[in-house]
Formats: sequence, C-alpha cells, structure tokens
Amino acid sequence: MTASRSLPHERWLARQLQRGGAPNAQLVLWDGTRSGPEDAKGRLVVRDRRTLASLLLKPDLAFGDAFAAGTLGVEGDLVEVLVQLFEAPPSALQRLAGAWRQRRGSSNTRNGSRRNIHRHYDLGNEFYALWLDAQMVYTCAYFPNPGSTLEEAQRAKLEHVARKLWIQPGERVLELGCGWGALALHLAREHGARVTAYNISSEQIRFARERARREGLDDRVSFVEDDYRNARGSYDAVASVGMLEHVGARNHRVLGQVIDRCLREDGRGLLHSIGRVRPLPMNPWIERRIFPGAYAPTLSEMGDLLGRFDLAVLDAENLRLHYAKTLEHWLERYEKNVDAVCDRFGESFVRAWRLYLAGSIAAFRTSSLQLWQLVFARHRAEIPWTREHLHRGREGA
Amino acid sequence: MTASRSLPHERWLARQLQRGGAPNAQLVLWDGTRSGPEDAKGRLVVRDRRTLASLLLKPDLAFGDAFAAGTLGVEGDLVEVLVQLFEAPPSALQRLAGAWRQRRGSSNTRNGSRRNIHRHYDLGNEFYALWLDAQMVYTCAYFPNPGSTLEEAQRAKLEHVARKLWIQPGERVLELGCGWGALALHLAREHGARVTAYNISSEQIRFARERARREGLDDRVSFVEDDYRNARGSYDAVASVGMLEHVGARNHRVLGQVIDRCLREDGRGLLHSIGRVRPLPMNPWIERRIFPGAYAPTLSEMGDLLGRFDLAVLDAENLRLHYAKTLEHWLERYEKNVDAVCDRFGESFVRAWRLYLAGSIAAFRTSSLQLWQLVFARHRAEIPWTREHLHRGREGA
Repeated sequence: MTASRSLPHERWLARQLQRGGAPNAQLVLWDGTRSGPEDAKGRLVVRDRRTLASLLLKPDLAFGDAFAAGTLGVEGDLVEVLVQLFEAPPSALQRLAGAWRQRRGSSNTRNGSRRNIHRHYDLGNEFYALWLDAQMVYTCAYFPNPGSTLEEAQRAKLEHVARKLWIQPGERVLELGCGWGALALHLAREHGARVTAYNISSEQIRFARERARREGLDDRVSFVEDDYRNARGSYDAVASVGMLEHVGARNHRVLGQVIDRCLREDGRGLLHSIGRVRPLPMNPWIERRIFPGAYAPTLSEMGDLLGRFDLAVLDAENLRLHYAKTLEHWLERYEKNVDAVCDRFGESFVRAWRLYLAGSIAAFRTSSLQLWQLVFARHRAEIPWTREHLHRGREGA
Repeated sequence: MTASRSLPHERWLARQLQRGGAPNAQLVLWDGTRSGPEDAKGRLVVRDRRTLASLLLKPDLAFGDAFAAGTLGVEGDLVEVLVQLFEAPPSALQRLAGAWRQRRGSSNTRNGSRRNIHRHYDLGNEFYALWLDAQMVYTCAYFPNPGSTLEEAQRAKLEHVARKLWIQPGERVLELGCGWGALALHLAREHGARVTAYNISSEQIRFARERARREGLDDRVSFVEDDYRNARGSYDAVASVGMLEHVGARNHRVLGQVIDRCLREDGRGLLHSIGRVRPLPMNPWIERRIFPGAYAPTLSEMGDLLGRFDLAVLDAENLRLHYAKTLEHWLERYEKNVDAVCDRFGESFVRAWRLYLAGSIAAFRTSSLQLWQLVFARHRAEIPWTREHLHRGREGA
C-alpha cells in the first residue's frame, strides 16, 4: 500500500493539513508528493494513506500514535518542528499536533491513582536511570546558570526548595509524592530535618528506602508506601514537588484538606507543579499514552486550592525555561542510551518517549506549559523578610 | 445622655458584644460598666447608648464611624487592639469590627472613577506630604532590612520594580496609575527609560509634571491626565503599582485588554496590588469612607486577568509584612503632624485616618490583606534566567 500513488483528493487534503497545521514545515506523502515551502527546516513524512486519514479524523491522538508507530516521520530537528506546531494558531495546532480537546481524564480514585502511577513510574528504575541524573530527580531542575550540568542543577533545585521552605534543624517535614527520595534525603542530610515521605509507586519507595539505609539516614527519613490522602500528623513544613499534576483537578480540594490538616499554625509549604496560563485539559496523547490521569493546573487553581484554607501564597516562581533545559538534558541522555531502551521496550516505545520529551521541550519553550513553585503559609508563620537568602552565596553555584 | 446609667439589657448586650467580638479586650460603657478580662491590654470605650445600639445594628460601618466621631474610644495600643479584632473568629469580627459584608462597590465607570479617585487623592498634596516619604510614594515599600528608613525602602521599592521589569536603556514604558510620579521618574533617571504615565488625579499630575521639569526629565517622561482605559501605543514594559485595587473586579477584563493592546510581543509587565487570599469585598467602612470603589483581588483573579490574554505570571512576591512596616512609618509620621491635619480637616477626620492606617497595619500583619507584585510576560519575552539579579549588590542596601 505504501508504494501506491497518492490520489488527487489525498494530495488536496495533505495541502490543507500542511497549510493549516504546519505552515513552516513541509508535508511529504508516501509517494513523494510535497506540500509547503521547499526551504522548510522540518519535514513531516506521512508514510501511508491510513495515517493521512487518521490525522484528519482523530487529530488528538493520531499524531503521537503515528509517530510512535513509525508511520509518521519527522525529518529535521524534532524539537524545532514541534515548536512550530505549538506556535501555529490554536485551530491548526488542534488539527495537526492533536492538541487540547476536552475529554474526561482517567479517574484518580485511590485505585485509579495506583494504576495510573504504576503505568508511568513502574517502568523500572533501570529505565529512568538511563537518562535521569545520578540522584534520580524526575522534576524540573534549577540551573543557577544555563551552563550548569544536570547534576548541579538538580542539587541546586533541592537546595532552592529547602531554602524556600526555610527548614530549620530538627523540624518535621511532610513530603507528598517523593519520587525516588532525593528531596527527603537532602532535607535530612543538609538541613537536619525529620522527613515523612509518601509515594504510591512501589518501585520508587524500594529504591528510596535502600538509599536512606545506605546513607545512614533511615532514622530521620521515613518513606511510606501509601496514598497522600492518608497522610496524618502535624508538620512544620509540607512539600509536594511534581505530584499535583497527577492529582487531577477534581482532587485539588482533597489535597488542600491534607495540607491544612497536617500543617502547623506556624508552618510553611511548597507546591511545585507543571501548570498552564489558562485552564485546558492535558494534551490527549500525553494523557492517554504517557501520563494517565494528569492535569496541569493554572496559577489560579493552585491559589484557590490554598486560599480556601487561608494558606497565603508568599512566593511564586515560574521555572518554565528551566524545565525546557532539564528536558534537553534528559533527551540528550535518552538518545545516548536509546539502544538499551529499544532492547527492553521496542522501537515504538522509543519513538513515543522521544516525542514526549521533545514535545515537552517545545511546550515549555513556547509557554504552552509553565512550571510553578509556590511557597505558602498561614499568618502565624515565621517567614524570611526578603527572598535574598535564596541566592546568598549561590551565585554561579 | 452620656452620664445616665446603663440599663440591664444594655449591660447584657455589651457582654455579648465583648465575648463574641473582642474576647481579649475589655468593653467599657459610658457609666463605667466593664465586661471582659480586667488584665486586658486594650479597652473599647462606648461613650453613649446610641453607639452601643449602632454597633449591634450596623456593625459594618458603626465601628469606624463611631471611632471617627469619638463616641467609641480605644484605650491601649490601637494597632494591637485591631489585631485582636482581626484575629477573632470571622462571625465575631463581622459583628464588632464591622467587616466583610457583601455590598455593591461604588461604580468605576470613567466618571465614577474620577469622582472616587478625586475624593481620596485630591485631599491635597500638602496633606500627603505630612506623612509620606520625600518622594511621595503612596504604595507598599520594600525594606531591604526591617530597620531601613522609609526613604531607603521606597527607593529600594522603585529599584525592585525596575529590576523585575528588566528595563533596558531607551525602552518605552507605560505606567498605569502613576501617583505623584516617583516610579516613572526613577525608570527614566536610573534606567534611561522613556515613560508615558497615566493618572486621573489632577493634583498628582500637576505635582509630577513640575517635578519632571525640575529634574530635567520632562523630555523622557510624559505625564498624561487621563483614564488608563484610554492608553494606546506599543511598549516594551507596562507597570501598574497600586492602581488595580481602584479598578474594581468588574473592570479587570478591561485592564487586561489595555495591557494586551499596549504590550509588545516581547514585552514584560508588572502588577502591584493589595490582595486577598479569598474573594471578599473590601471592609465596608474603608470602601465607604476612605477608598470608594476599591476592591482587593485574589492572586487567582490577578492570574486570570492576565491568563485570559496569554500573559504568563513569571514571578509573584507577597510583601504583606513590608506593607505593615510601611504603614507603621506612615502612622508614626502622621501622629507627629496630627496638629496640622486637625487644623485643616478637624478631629473626626484625624480619627478616621488614624483608624484607616492602624487598621491596615493590623490587616497586613494578620494576613487579612496581602500585597502582591506580579511579573508577567508573553512567551517571546527575553527574561532573566533566575531572580538572582534582583538582589545582586543590594544586600543591606
């Protein structure tokens, strides 16, 4: 079928698709027919007629699925092509990059969350070790300089969070969604905190506990394999880095209740999450194939989540360019180790994750996604007078 | 009437009022009858039976009106007593401090705004000169240290705003609501900006123009006596410091349109406003007697105002403790010059403004009010990599 010649109506459809969705890229059909500028930097190659039809009929999933299947190819710099798609007018973006149609997200009931998180995070620690930093931090880093290494930037991020939370030795910290444990261990090791950290990914919890033992921090850090909704106790600080996206809009109130219940009157908190400028559902392909149940909130939704419980936002920092940079490092390491990924998961998985990483770079670069770190407190909190302490002695760190 | 003995039902009402609204203060009636703790730090003195009745019947206005009239006295530290009232449970607060009942704010049509602003800002430059800093900045200052002088702190605030906006020499800046012109002049003098600044208070505009001439900056700063809604042109940066509170919730969309229309694709902006954690109307007494038409928005409302136009918040800083400190300086200077105020406006005005300043200190201290500075931009803006430049070389400034 791939070899057969394209028909007139297919060539017409391809031209419409190219003009509307990728004005700066060239669209090439299986028989070599081209639409769009000859000097385009990027080329989208549609390898069979079924793929062309699916791009028109199921735009929200077809782009990603066809890319993963290998029936849609991108020639040129993948990130640059995706940036162009993100910068195309919304209607066009919807059609070709398969963006933002409203649909119900996967359910984040307690069992739903466990299934959703398992699907993404339990792909195996070995897989993530191939492309994350040595500490296994799978959230936006903080680059003191654009030229910092990924290892430096993740260490700087952990310290940035610790300073924002104004952690004092001996204080009790609750972490909701702790990944492989790097932040909990940093707060205990560098700031003398006693940390209780929740996570429902068993692979991650096992790894984190082993690390705490190896570092001799298991008396100060307790990793709990349980849902954040079950957190109890009274803490000086609450941190949640990269969990809110998985909580889903319908559970914002519940997360607020957990924070409200567990935070002392004079406590401080930090929420770190991927976000958006306007309320929009996740990219359906990402939500369906990569991050089931995910929803990136607006700053307003985060503010309301906290404000309902009289938790005032003290500081909000948008680190979207730092996330683009973090993802560039991840993608580079991923490509270096792509053979190992392929051996374990196959070609289609390799392409799907390549699209997810490259597409995320494009989304953060073009401000389609934001990354917000919010510091909050009740009115009795002792808080630093200015934000100057966040940077003291760290220039060029 | 004041000398007549209080009746049994009045004493009973006084006890209810004291318990519900001011549990840590003592309430004293005109005949010396006391309710509440004998060792209380503060005392509310109700000087006649009509005032007692009004406190019960018209709680939202009676407290302020009676204080201004002198029929309700406060013995002890006024700010401390007000902090106690703010910290009392909301229902009690509503009853005694006359807080947050829903009512329609004064209209901010173009004529309405002019009337509203005239009433507050055109009390005369001499009046404000009695208690503001030398530059006449009537918004929250930024204290590099709690011990900085008011003059240092207002200068530091102007510089803080300039750095947040990342102003480069020769850039065009639009200021919406420019007060007596200090920020516009600072941006021109210290950063080489060309500034167009809007204000509808004729007293302020006259003062600002005179100052620009005196400083030889009138070729670079243009003060326009007009409504912000009439602003046109294309600017590298838009700043609005302390105007949003007067714009009113119903005009947030219009303000967003003005910013959207006037800001270049690669421009940056800053919104500085009194705010709240939850959407609540202004204190009715403040709104009626001091700031007609005012409404303090939530962070969410500010985020939505911008997000609707794809303007992403890059940075939000809550300076509520800096506003409490600013107001302490103002109140101290006000009290030093209270005789001059009294000569011009009379006793009742003196007390009303005393309550307004002291009540604002209490509100910012107790987190009943917030002060947010938001930096925002579209996705093509050149923005600093971190916030470290805000503090470089400024420690202890």
